[in-house]
Amino acid sequence: MKQPLLEHQEQHLYEQIASELAERIRQSVVRPGERLPSVRRLSEQKSVSISTVLQAYIRLEDMGLVESRPQSGYYVRNRQRILPEPAMHRAPLRPSSVSVVTAVRALLDATQDPSIIPLGAASPNPLLLPTTRLYRTLANVARSARPESNTYDSTAGTAELRRLIAFRSSDWGGSLTGDDIIITAGCTESLSLCLRSVTRPGDTVAVESPSYFGMLQIIEGLGLKALHIPTDPREGMCASHFEQACQSYAVRACLVMPNFHNPLGSLMPDEKKRELVAIASRYSVPLIEDDIYGDLHFDRQRPRNLQSFDTEGNVLLCSSFSKTLSPDFRIGWTAPGRYYEQVLRMKMTSTLASPMLLQHTVARFLRDGGYDHHVRSMRKTLSLQIERAVQTIARHFPQGTGVTRPAGGFVLWIELPAGVDALLLQQQALEEKISIAPGPVFSAGTDFTNCIRINCGCAWSEHIEQALIRIGELAAAQL
Amino acid sequence: MKQPLLEHQEQHLYEQIASELAERIRQSVVRPGERLPSVRRLSEQKSVSISTVLQAYIRLEDMGLVESRPQSGYYVRNRQRILPEPAMHRAPLRPSSVSVVTAVRALLDATQDPSIIPLGAASPNPLLLPTTRLYRTLANVARSARPESNTYDSTAGTAELRRLIAFRSSDWGGSLTGDDIIITAGCTESLSLCLRSVTRPGDTVAVESPSYFGMLQIIEGLGLKALHIPTDPREGMCASHFEQACQSYAVRACLVMPNFHNPLGSLMPDEKKRELVAIASRYSVPLIEDDIYGDLHFDRQRPRNLQSFDTEGNVLLCSSFSKTLSPDFRIGWTAPGRYYEQVLRMKMTSTLASPMLLQHTVARFLRDGGYDHHVRSMRKTLSLQIERAVQTIARHFPQGTGVTRPAGGFVLWIELPAGVDALLLQQQALEEKISIAPGPVFSAGTDFTNCIRINCGCAWSEHIEQALIRIGELAAAQL
Repeated sequence: MKQPLLEHQEQHLYEQIASELAERIRQSVVRPGERLPSVRRLSEQKSVSISTVLQAYIRLEDMGLVESRPQSGYYVRNRQRILPEPAMHRAPLRPSSVSVVTAVRALLDATQDPSIIPLGAASPNPLLLPTTRLYRTLANVARSARPESNTYDSTAGTAELRRLIAFRSSDWGGSLTGDDIIITAGCTESLSLCLRSVTRPGDTVAVESPSYFGMLQIIEGLGLKALHIPTDPREGMCASHFEQACQSYAVRACLVMPNFHNPLGSLMPDEKKRELVAIASRYSVPLIEDDIYGDLHFDRQRPRNLQSFDTEGNVLLCSSFSKTLSPDFRIGWTAPGRYYEQVLRMKMTSTLASPMLLQHTVARFLRDGGYDHHVRSMRKTLSLQIERAVQTIARHFPQGTGVTRPAGGFVLWIELPAGVDALLLQQQALEEKISIAPGPVFSAGTDFTNCIRINCGCAWSEHIEQALIRIGELAAAQL
Repeated sequence: MKQPLLEHQEQHLYEQIASELAERIRQSVVRPGERLPSVRRLSEQKSVSISTVLQAYIRLEDMGLVESRPQSGYYVRNRQRILPEPAMHRAPLRPSSVSVVTAVRALLDATQDPSIIPLGAASPNPLLLPTTRLYRTLANVARSARPESNTYDSTAGTAELRRLIAFRSSDWGGSLTGDDIIITAGCTESLSLCLRSVTRPGDTVAVESPSYFGMLQIIEGLGLKALHIPTDPREGMCASHFEQACQSYAVRACLVMPNFHNPLGSLMPDEKKRELVAIASRYSVPLIEDDIYGDLHFDRQRPRNLQSFDTEGNVLLCSSFSKTLSPDFRIGWTAPGRYYEQVLRMKMTSTLASPMLLQHTVARFLRDGGYDHHVRSMRKTLSLQIERAVQTIARHFPQGTGVTRPAGGFVLWIELPAGVDALLLQQQALEEKISIAPGPVFSAGTDFTNCIRINCGCAWSEHIEQALIRIGELAAAQL
């Protein structure tokens, strides 16, 4: 997507130039081995300074797309090949009971062992998070808190944090107030409370295919059935399949991740969001929207969410600060639309309240601008790491591998050649102290046996690159 | 209960002497208006120092039981009358659907308004908690935490906190290891996860009568039915009624609070605990035990819990640090016996993990002895406040009032004369900015219409005393 060069834009000029060139390299408009325009020439073409062009070229070098040759200029690197994107998986359209808990255990256990290279769980490296500042803020909050604050918070959560989240909702086209919001113990509690509020055991819930295994576990834990809807690796859940499902089954809720889907990284276009909201309304199916990666967009603009297209309170929006500030704080939130009362009661009988000291800490971070500044730099780092991982995969994974092109977030979905057994690959990798997420845990059925998800939230290093190469070798050895 | 005067006992000598004398005053062995032995004489009788006796007399004065008359000595104060204890309520033995959520809302809302005198919710005054030290510890933990710790904890919780809780289990006759324990978001999450792990919607759950409204709300939220078992204000749930219930109904679980029951303050004797555990085992009914007040015993010895009598893993023990350290931290725990795996999975899909920084803070408090020291002094304060509240009620509440004699914790259950409408009393009191808990919220049926629960966890003051007197006046005015 080309972006106009307007001075007042948030994104830096050099980044825009780099993105444009990157896109042209990806489209093979400029081919491997070809020389890019000289710095002087591009600076004249674009009417920008020499140093802006130099920054853009350095960025492309960081992304692994070009290399500089002394006395000669910048050249497009040899990308052995451009990997295809995986096609949309057409799951059989029928509800199934869910049982992925056991397969997930090894994945989560691996996160507790620091000697294991964490390409499995979708967890940002603490060094990419503003951990030191966050902890310092917490220390200040704790030291200055009035003793009287050591009591139960209201179930909805601290008013100031709810106000600040509501204030940000204009970023995604929303218009929430603090009274629309309930603070929760991470996005997991948001999803769980919302799902419990709109379903009864035995009900059928529509989910993407593939789908975040945490969602599948919640569905399993509540005794619900999952109905997988085919989901496009670029554009997300297929609206027409969703409508077909609503016609054929008593779908009681739909769990959906339109922005930077886990594991696909897909971003649903606004038109499709509008359509999905309309279908859900037509069939009276509550949409539970997980927007936990929404702030981690690689493009200039933060994407809208489904709720911003909803006028009936039919969308229960869920999110948290676990991917951008702290997984440990367990501070998430939900704006559950017309189900507010049910969700609030459900929280009252599940965890009662959330810790005020942690809420105040997050609020302070949001208020003083620390959050925005941090997320901006985190986005750059993540897009770079995704790009590097894609390149490494292109160079070292076996013929027939496909990989997604996420528009945000920090996971990659890799389709390995048919014949590779992802569960076996997970075991083999674990023996070499590398954790990956095998495809089958992202399905209630027996799909995605040759797919894996890779966490690109680690700080990129030689060590990480070697681990990724090793995954490719292990996969190739299975063929 | 008399206690032998042994030097090596934990309780101070003067406290033992004061308790003995208090008991004799209660039994009317020493009558109002009578003079206590002179300080010198008692010091000779007991072979203790003059200053020990003086301390004992000052303690009795603090308890409102005696008064000093200058130049004359210590005299037993006029207690207008000794109030009877309420009798065991014989609830009809049949399961009923639960709906108390709305009635509870006013009670909880009142806790958010600092202008309201908090005799309603069972919340300890923050000034009775080691708030400043706790916050300082948290600040230190946050400042010294390694950045790498900013990630998801394991679902079971931080190993060190689990170990320290297990270490304490010998206090209540238990022998837990850290691997038996799961950290939760307060006792509310413990109870909710345990109940969800052993029941399905529509099932019947045995509970005490009266019963903590939070339990009834959890039961309601899960679509379960409550079966009230008559419960003695001194000795807790009636074992024979429980057995009868198991014979007559498909009881799927039993929620019980044997130590310092909320709202009755009852303490189940060891023999009855053993019996209850045996019956539950015989009928294969899991016992979910809430021991949240167990550390707040007024007697010398911490009481055992049901789990310490269980050899089959049939007791799911639940507790938290909300009543003794911090309601805000939301750090509770459960040792769910043979249901460990189910409860752990349930937590994984409900809140995933607990905040490590808060767990480390509680662990540090347990490890360095701050907890024991604090709880010791908190127990003294609470027993004193309970005693003062009982006296105030005896002086100012209408004829026909009964009140419990709690053996620990910080709530009093008051049976007002028939004809007093507790829900109306709640409204009337709220208009005068006083919150109380009306009896009906402690029942799934329509019982306890003339009962109220009073929180004695506030720091005692003229202000609190006047509020309590006002409740008595409002009740009298209804007659």
